[in-house]
Amino acid sequence: MNVNDALVVGYGHTKFGKLSGTSSEQLVVDAASQAIARAGVEPNDIDAIYVGNFNSGMQPFSSPSSLPLQLSGDLRGVPATRVENACASGSAAVHQGVLTLLSGIARTVLVVGVEKMTDVTGAAAGAALLGADYDTAGTAAPAGFAGLFANVAVEYEQRYGPVGDTLAEIAAKSHQNALRNPLAHLHKNYDRAFCATVSEANPIVAGPLRRTDCSPVSDGAAALVLSTQRSADASVPPVRFRGIAHANDFLPSAKRDPLEFYGSQQAWHRAMQMAEATLDDLSVIELHDCFTIAELNLYEVLGLAPRGRGREVLHDGTVARDGKLPVNPSGGLKSKGHPVGATGVSQHVLAAMQLTGAAGHMQVDGASLAAVHNMGGLAIANYVSILESV
Amino acid sequence: MNVNDALVVGYGHTKFGKLSGTSSEQLVVDAASQAIARAGVEPNDIDAIYVGNFNSGMQPFSSPSSLPLQLSGDLRGVPATRVENACASGSAAVHQGVLTLLSGIARTVLVVGVEKMTDVTGAAAGAALLGADYDTAGTAAPAGFAGLFANVAVEYEQRYGPVGDTLAEIAAKSHQNALRNPLAHLHKNYDRAFCATVSEANPIVAGPLRRTDCSPVSDGAAALVLSTQRSADASVPPVRFRGIAHANDFLPSAKRDPLEFYGSQQAWHRAMQMAEATLDDLSVIELHDCFTIAELNLYEVLGLAPRGRGREVLHDGTVARDGKLPVNPSGGLKSKGHPVGATGVSQHVLAAMQLTGAAGHMQVDGASLAAVHNMGGLAIANYVSILESV
Repeated sequence: MNVNDALVVGYGHTKFGKLSGTSSEQLVVDAASQAIARAGVEPNDIDAIYVGNFNSGMQPFSSPSSLPLQLSGDLRGVPATRVENACASGSAAVHQGVLTLLSGIARTVLVVGVEKMTDVTGAAAGAALLGADYDTAGTAAPAGFAGLFANVAVEYEQRYGPVGDTLAEIAAKSHQNALRNPLAHLHKNYDRAFCATVSEANPIVAGPLRRTDCSPVSDGAAALVLSTQRSADASVPPVRFRGIAHANDFLPSAKRDPLEFYGSQQAWHRAMQMAEATLDDLSVIELHDCFTIAELNLYEVLGLAPRGRGREVLHDGTVARDGKLPVNPSGGLKSKGHPVGATGVSQHVLAAMQLTGAAGHMQVDGASLAAVHNMGGLAIANYVSILESV
Repeated sequence: MNVNDALVVGYGHTKFGKLSGTSSEQLVVDAASQAIARAGVEPNDIDAIYVGNFNSGMQPFSSPSSLPLQLSGDLRGVPATRVENACASGSAAVHQGVLTLLSGIARTVLVVGVEKMTDVTGAAAGAALLGADYDTAGTAAPAGFAGLFANVAVEYEQRYGPVGDTLAEIAAKSHQNALRNPLAHLHKNYDRAFCATVSEANPIVAGPLRRTDCSPVSDGAAALVLSTQRSADASVPPVRFRGIAHANDFLPSAKRDPLEFYGSQQAWHRAMQMAEATLDDLSVIELHDCFTIAELNLYEVLGLAPRGRGREVLHDGTVARDGKLPVNPSGGLKSKGHPVGATGVSQHVLAAMQLTGAAGHMQVDGASLAAVHNMGGLAIANYVSILESV
């Protein structure tokens, strides 16, 4: 058995947003039910469950592995595991699901990513997220993770010149793409001029990052059914894994170059190698744009542009929705929303939708090979999946 | 590849206890270094890392997957994942390690379980642990998990009569066994009379459970190197997995019989079946005695005694250190200590020590087949491993 034997046979996705009155449990059950229904399987076909969830104090219930069992009495006794890798917890769950298929222990696996962030104040959510940073966890760093990525932006500007306009362009692309995604948290018709202008509606969060450079605090869940076999009752075509890779980096920031994203580079390179693919083969990328500076830097880390020249693929239209290699046609974390444990699973769902022609107004024409990039912390836990149409 | 191809080739274990001034990171590095050294491998032989950790607010840093990278620069880029299944987080890490070997993606895996609980107050640790209970998480239930297991004891007494003396006997066995374990948290020469008597030194924690019926709040880490191949440089003999199983149960207590431990029963049955073993084949069991009532009930759940008659295997000496089937010769969670994320890994380490004749004063003569049982929550996440001498 190898990675090509692992299929996405069903997917589910709640709306992302501030979903007041909807619990983690309801989000899990909603996304998982959709995925199981589309896969055309029954709950008793599920051999294993993985739940991607960060939490870090945002919810009092801190051991969510069995939440999907609320879906059906037939799931009693199924092995269920929560995996956590900060903002890459969702892809952690997906990759554990794939490994479990490859192990031969399971034929069909349910993967759910979930995060319920808006039950606490924004400050508490910020503090929870900062729990993922080795150097500042538990401190009162007021700008939280935005402050960490602001440091990346400052460093980028020192090496390569001002990026304010470029980041605004990325933000505007993201907002325009999200208008086409009914599942997205933010549906704002913001253009480049709005995103580039510091205003009451778009204040500085952590210089140089403005509000429009930051992903929102969101609730949501996404789910996949992975299997080595497609059910005749499936209502969606399958998608195949062609490569997966995961690489972790050192925790202390002093041991990392702030722009290198070493782990992302490693994971990207290994997954592309496993897939025997080059950039020219890719139809679409969903990458981890928790902040616009992350997207800009990732153009370079993933090899779309040389170091310091990421803006070029933006300016020449390469990464636009109708460009040669669209990046984040879903709106990305920035505008689709970033319920952290759900994000990686959501990216895989969006990729599967693109590869099966089911992406609606987001559809990239003729998409046949998609890359997903998801990272936790400041490129600490890095996951890449390459998925293809069958 | 099947489960028998997975070997424990090295192990490490810190002292368990209140380890003031020692961080999670130091515990991880200590246990992992020991395991790698005994396995006779180099850090760059490690293909994947799993970290079992519960946390739930006991430490501000909430994303520990990369902590083992502090051990060596050669671990940069290795995929590292934290898994969590409450008090079974350690076995969750072990089982993910085994699955990863079976997947063919990795040849050698480092597994570390860690918990640092004593940096917060006892009340805060209790509240953190209660985070694993669906019904009471976030409430001010003063007796915490002891209250939940007290309910099990009350139910047991209603069905089968008083258990105070039996629990005291289990506690005394545990304390006496732990005196032989240099890694144990509690080295107390408590006899049955002391454990049976409510006193200032042994107060009621949650009736009918006394202090001596409860595992302590501990710090500690344990590690394993798992591999499909033994290094010629290994300083310890390998141990082979013969069966593994994992079963989750429903979260709401209303959906579970308090004594059934359905998931534990399922996991035990499946693992024994995979191992093609019966109770008569087993040399030793390390089981999840977070409270003495759990050990008593597990005698019945795992089939050592019929329902309601668990005390018999205690009275006839079966489960004694020198009995036919010793249970928890390490002192168990009760006296060895229960740093929750470390516990499951610790149980596997102790089993490996028994199976290789390295258990010192704890040694069970001629031990050749060992069972590990670890559970999270009130039998929500349940893991069983059957390990054998090679």
